Amino acid sequence: MTTAAPIDDQETSAGRPEEFYLPPLPRLLPVGYHPEAARIEFASNGWVRRMLGPCFAGEEQLLHFLRQRNGLYGPLTVPRADAGRARDIADWYQFVTVIDSFASDRHALGADHASARATFAAVLDALDGPLPAGDGPAAVYGRAARDLYERLGRGLSPAQTARLLASLAAFLHGCAVEIRSKLDRAVPEFEECMRVREDSFGCAFLQLLTEYAAEVDLTALRATGLLNQVHHHAMRQLIIVNDLLSWRKEYRDEDTMTTVRVLCEGQGLTLQAAVDRLCALVERHERAYLAARDALLAGPADADLRAYLAGLDQLIGGSQEFEYLTPRYFGDGSAWDGSTSGWLSLTDPVAHFRPAPATR
Amino acid sequence: MTTAAPIDDQETSAGRPEEFYLPPLPRLLPVGYHPEAARIEFASNGWVRRMLGPCFAGEEQLLHFLRQRNGLYGPLTVPRADAGRARDIADWYQFVTVIDSFASDRHALGADHASARATFAAVLDALDGPLPAGDGPAAVYGRAARDLYERLGRGLSPAQTARLLASLAAFLHGCAVEIRSKLDRAVPEFEECMRVREDSFGCAFLQLLTEYAAEVDLTALRATGLLNQVHHHAMRQLIIVNDLLSWRKEYRDEDTMTTVRVLCEGQGLTLQAAVDRLCALVERHERAYLAARDALLAGPADADLRAYLAGLDQLIGGSQEFEYLTPRYFGDGSAWDGSTSGWLSLTDPVAHFRPAPATR
Repeated sequence: MTTAAPIDDQETSAGRPEEFYLPPLPRLLPVGYHPEAARIEFASNGWVRRMLGPCFAGEEQLLHFLRQRNGLYGPLTVPRADAGRARDIADWYQFVTVIDSFASDRHALGADHASARATFAAVLDALDGPLPAGDGPAAVYGRAARDLYERLGRGLSPAQTARLLASLAAFLHGCAVEIRSKLDRAVPEFEECMRVREDSFGCAFLQLLTEYAAEVDLTALRATGLLNQVHHHAMRQLIIVNDLLSWRKEYRDEDTMTTVRVLCEGQGLTLQAAVDRLCALVERHERAYLAARDALLAGPADADLRAYLAGLDQLIGGSQEFEYLTPRYFGDGSAWDGSTSGWLSLTDPVAHFRPAPATR
Repeated sequence: MTTAAPIDDQETSAGRPEEFYLPPLPRLLPVGYHPEAARIEFASNGWVRRMLGPCFAGEEQLLHFLRQRNGLYGPLTVPRADAGRARDIADWYQFVTVIDSFASDRHALGADHASARATFAAVLDALDGPLPAGDGPAAVYGRAARDLYERLGRGLSPAQTARLLASLAAFLHGCAVEIRSKLDRAVPEFEECMRVREDSFGCAFLQLLTEYAAEVDLTALRATGLLNQVHHHAMRQLIIVNDLLSWRKEYRDEDTMTTVRVLCEGQGLTLQAAVDRLCALVERHERAYLAARDALLAGPADADLRAYLAGLDQLIGGSQEFEYLTPRYFGDGSAWDGSTSGWLSLTDPVAHFRPAPATR
């Protein structure tokens, strides 16, 4: 682990460029929008207001979150799911994104990792304990988590329900580790970063909700290790694409748990060299995922496994599509026009892929 | 016609309330989202940037427009259309909404109705004349209109293509009349307002694009007058719902060609009384539309007519849904959560339906 110099000073003294070029990424997986995507997003926004409204400092902060269009992450990652299940999944992703947002915020959960851990423990207790009362963050998050846990639980086996609880625990643990790392200004090694990000990116529930969307239960198959390769490459692709597309936000938020910072500050690469290396890694993992998936499909794969693998395809394609479109990464006030490559400013409040570097 | 006192003074001196209560509207027609709605909106935003970007003062003004989500009007009004046709229609509605926006803007087309008329004449000339060059508004609008005219023309009969041209001419004429009325601060009588609004709301192309979406040609049937009743009530419902939901914008823009202002300033009603009367009118026209439609369906209606009437249903339901969700009416920065009724502030930069009046 590297202890970083104060990030702002370092950026300034290094004269680091304030923009980078994002090349076209391979995008070998299909992108699908759920046929009810737009409607689900609006309805899910209503759920956020109703269930999580009190977590926000006020109406403006709530709207700031809703403008990020996080309610589309579900419909984009489970485009073929039953509409009710897609809606459950959309609400789940909104919930964990609210948590992730406040964990990155030094004036909220991000202020103190011990206090965040206590809140997270209370949230987990709410899943099958007494329903929490009051308007404190732990109670509000707890009731929202309980609502989701009950809705999803109706379509999950007992083993999957246990995995849902464990996946939320892993995610919250990852968030707490990220909070501490950021407060300590500690930039991890690459593999350590990947381990934490696997939790904080929610890989366990990404996989579980892919099962929920496909209406299959792969708990037993997972235990055989047969899915390890597809999962390894799929999750790395998801995380690295996210690190590239979220870099503007992570840079601004001074988050340390991102592979861009790991390569720049831990390994001394320039920002553009780090981006280029990560783009190469995206392609490597994407192609390795496809090979591992095709190997499984060439074997004695049953219908459930085939449905799940089709779901992973959609997860990978849809997650990346979401990350191009969300104002969470491109700046509050951005509006996507389908562009996916070009020069990207780190400091413009609203970024748009430019065909050439900004004149400085 | 009434010549209104300067609107701001009148509002202030009358102590007129700065909010009103919008009751739940009947919503008897189905609301459908095109299965490709989200994707079409993003792609259509790219078309606006590419074809109409130079009309905007800068990137911020372009983004302000794109944040209004006008690219969803098409997918919401033709939810069952072929995806390519739905995309053509989405681009068309973005185009006319750009024109409508600048016509309401005293620093753009809205500055001078004679100059606006000259621009509009040039746009119409571009449809089947030489392709205009340059970056002036007339050339930019002209090239965009030509692009749409050619794309739509490939799916229209010659008679329908002629109607498309006439519908754009009627719309632009309506816009010019509105510009003049606003510059003159002239509040029209109710029926006069309706006649202008029928043009400026684009009723002729709303009907034509409903045919395009359904892939039918009702030109001959229209000439028999058989559709007059369904059109009369459908268009009145569309316009009055629009006047109610756009009132925040029309009030701020000091537009005169809206039935809310007609009832308040021409007939002396309070704002709430005007809203209530218009809500009653919405219900009357909506029920009358249903009765007229059912009468046609009970007769010897062929498949084309049935498809068209189903399209009108979707137009009415989808148009209203759009008007609840667009930041064009609820304020830049709003994010819809599905709410459709409550107290609505005229002056808050971003409005949200409140369960009770604001404390003053």
